[in-house]
Amino acid sequence: MAEIKKIKPSLPKGTRDFLPEEVAKRNYIFDTIKKVFRKYGFQQIDTPAFERLETLTGKYGEEGDRLLFKILNSGDYLKDAPEAELQSKNSAAITKHISEKVLRYDLTVPLARYVVQHQSDLTFPFKRFHIAPVWRADRPQKGRYQEFYQCDADIIGSTSLLNEVELTLIYAEVFRVLGIPVYIDLSSRKFLYGFAKLCGAENNFIEFTTIIDKEDKIGSARVKEELNTLTAGTGDKYIDLLPLMYMTEENYEERFENIISKFKVIDSQDGIDGLTEIQIVLEAILKYKYPSDRISFTPTLARGLGYYSGIIWEVVLNKPQILEDFNKEIEMGSLGGGGRYDNLTEMFGGRDMSGVGISFGIERIYDVMEELKLFPAELGETTKVLFVHFDDASEAYAFEALQKVRAADIASEIYPGRRKLDKQMNYANDKKIPFVVVIGGDEMASGKLSFKNMASGEQQKLNIEEIIEKLRS
Amino acid sequence: MAEIKKIKPSLPKGTRDFLPEEVAKRNYIFDTIKKVFRKYGFQQIDTPAFERLETLTGKYGEEGDRLLFKILNSGDYLKDAPEAELQSKNSAAITKHISEKVLRYDLTVPLARYVVQHQSDLTFPFKRFHIAPVWRADRPQKGRYQEFYQCDADIIGSTSLLNEVELTLIYAEVFRVLGIPVYIDLSSRKFLYGFAKLCGAENNFIEFTTIIDKEDKIGSARVKEELNTLTAGTGDKYIDLLPLMYMTEENYEERFENIISKFKVIDSQDGIDGLTEIQIVLEAILKYKYPSDRISFTPTLARGLGYYSGIIWEVVLNKPQILEDFNKEIEMGSLGGGGRYDNLTEMFGGRDMSGVGISFGIERIYDVMEELKLFPAELGETTKVLFVHFDDASEAYAFEALQKVRAADIASEIYPGRRKLDKQMNYANDKKIPFVVVIGGDEMASGKLSFKNMASGEQQKLNIEEIIEKLRS
Repeated sequence: MAEIKKIKPSLPKGTRDFLPEEVAKRNYIFDTIKKVFRKYGFQQIDTPAFERLETLTGKYGEEGDRLLFKILNSGDYLKDAPEAELQSKNSAAITKHISEKVLRYDLTVPLARYVVQHQSDLTFPFKRFHIAPVWRADRPQKGRYQEFYQCDADIIGSTSLLNEVELTLIYAEVFRVLGIPVYIDLSSRKFLYGFAKLCGAENNFIEFTTIIDKEDKIGSARVKEELNTLTAGTGDKYIDLLPLMYMTEENYEERFENIISKFKVIDSQDGIDGLTEIQIVLEAILKYKYPSDRISFTPTLARGLGYYSGIIWEVVLNKPQILEDFNKEIEMGSLGGGGRYDNLTEMFGGRDMSGVGISFGIERIYDVMEELKLFPAELGETTKVLFVHFDDASEAYAFEALQKVRAADIASEIYPGRRKLDKQMNYANDKKIPFVVVIGGDEMASGKLSFKNMASGEQQKLNIEEIIEKLRS
Repeated sequence: MAEIKKIKPSLPKGTRDFLPEEVAKRNYIFDTIKKVFRKYGFQQIDTPAFERLETLTGKYGEEGDRLLFKILNSGDYLKDAPEAELQSKNSAAITKHISEKVLRYDLTVPLARYVVQHQSDLTFPFKRFHIAPVWRADRPQKGRYQEFYQCDADIIGSTSLLNEVELTLIYAEVFRVLGIPVYIDLSSRKFLYGFAKLCGAENNFIEFTTIIDKEDKIGSARVKEELNTLTAGTGDKYIDLLPLMYMTEENYEERFENIISKFKVIDSQDGIDGLTEIQIVLEAILKYKYPSDRISFTPTLARGLGYYSGIIWEVVLNKPQILEDFNKEIEMGSLGGGGRYDNLTEMFGGRDMSGVGISFGIERIYDVMEELKLFPAELGETTKVLFVHFDDASEAYAFEALQKVRAADIASEIYPGRRKLDKQMNYANDKKIPFVVVIGGDEMASGKLSFKNMASGEQQKLNIEEIIEKLRS
């Protein structure tokens, strides 16, 4: 470090440092989710931060390709770049000659690669979770970062609907433990195929889903209009059936039967299967005491992701409940989503395997928990007690006492070095350390140490064994 | 995903996927270390995977600059690149025009940036730990990766020697909990300054340390020779003092005094301070029952890192002990290292702050633990019990029983879908699930479920409450 140019410290746009308190809170979310994943038999995996260019290119559409962070090759990277394109400054054409690695864009394509590559080492059905940062060269804005965490659980290689039930239960359990009132929207790609056919839009499926997905934004009148335009007049014939199924009402069985009978008329097996699947999952969930007013079949949830082929989830805040319980109104996008997909592994030459998975929107969950003050006051990452002292002798005495506290596996510290008592107390306050042991001459003589509760200000004289007892309880 | 080109799945060279079992083992190491860090009052932080080019450039020497992974700017990145250098394919000159971000190379320079940038939000002395991947464009080889984890604990803003004592205790505790027999080498940059002066090499300090650092490789005779060459004959006069201090022997106080008296003659305050510091740290550690044959003042440990200014650590395997306890010989570089450094934050314009830190070599620790079979048989990440079934009715019954087990917070699974019993049993075996509950017609009729211990093969008929009791114990 011979010649150091002083520079003002700053971060690349769209990235963040995390302060200790923020890390503790993020860990609380991660640990809660991990614990539930493990309880349901999911195992954690990890993959490298960067993948080969050809592994990720073309997997996320044109827009996605643009948002991939490319890593410059090492050494004399321009050596083999075509001269004509260098001279014409054709960035797009040059990239593949000077970059062979890209940062991970999501956890799904790496999962597909991983499953095919390690097929013989994995146990199928393969239940894995993966919590890791991903990177996207998106224009940074409030709440959107170039580096952010994804948190996914997937089951690969099983078509059983039991997986859908389990994943729904995971959503319910995680948000219950975190204390976030949510609403789970369920839909089904298969049902939507059937319904599109019913409406005469089977040949315009993508447009059809785009229209009904907007229902909560544009209202049902506009949806009818647009559907009629799309289908030349037949589109709105059945659309009134949809809102009926929003809630799991007393007579929902009848209503399901009504639609299924219509699917039978037009011979849509997709429609029949889709609706039956929804019914099975909903019934299983309600049986296990998930409140029926916090989950529904929401057929207008059509989600843009084209690769879903079965059940689709979206988890959103339960706004009425938040208003009631917290007296707050919060605007926030979905906190989770997922679905069943087929042929995930096909792109890497893997055999045909069905997969189903859910993900948690960590960054939004964090924001909601901050807003609703849901983080526990003590996050288990903080020192329980600080020893303070006045001179070499009391420091040595304190240090010895500290070893006993640590031997009891209690997180504890001694203030390092000689500072005035109020400075040492400030240290405890700043780090939110709840107890302080003050050691001076009197304490050393009597063995009765001053044990101070920083919140109440209460102070007691206790010996070290009594202090350990207090800290344990 | 309209047109998918099938490609053979593979990883960039020098990177790794982690299978579930590997992640569980790595988590065991991380969690053990984190627990100790927290017990000593260290708080976790995080920083982005990439930093601004100018933040890292020039901080790791020329070699380091070469090994930084640069990220290509987004969009039309060639637009502003100088044409002359593009035409002459001057890679080195072009880089700064097409890349403004680089992947993190270590956790130390980001720490310096972080401390200066967030100074007003941090509590000093700032005790932080950071466990995260770093990336280096090194030539991959056995045991050396382009992506690997670093694991650092540092204290910034305190010159108290108590910090050195605490960090040494952390080393001792972590390796004791992991079960790895290690030897802690302590040295001191200040002592080495004094000793160099004693040997007449004060103006050739770097060369001096390089020579004595090689002592374990080239032997003391060669060291003497090289020192004599370096100092024109005076260098070997005191070198015989060094080996005397390798072990903490009965009369080590006398020996320390002997050298200190020599430092007094040549008026080397550095030498006196350095040796006194070593003595204080050693005595504190030995007082807290760290075995005296597993730590020593090893003055020939001079470590290349020029920025250390005080105590230096290196943790290596204790080979004699491994031979005795495990009947094995293992060749392995150091498992940890660290030291005190001054002016870490200076490069970012921060006020003068002394720091001291240690790091753990996660990848090598992993390899040693594999070699010595030190990972616990059950890593707490495995499902405890699997429910297997034969048909829809027994699946439904099993699923209901499963909910009770999960309500008791026991990690448990049901085999999803209809497979033959032996296939379901294989799933339990492959995932190392220790217990299986088999549910068929008899079990449903009697409520007595077949509870099988997969290791012993033992099978019992128990109701679900009894099974939960068994699984809990």
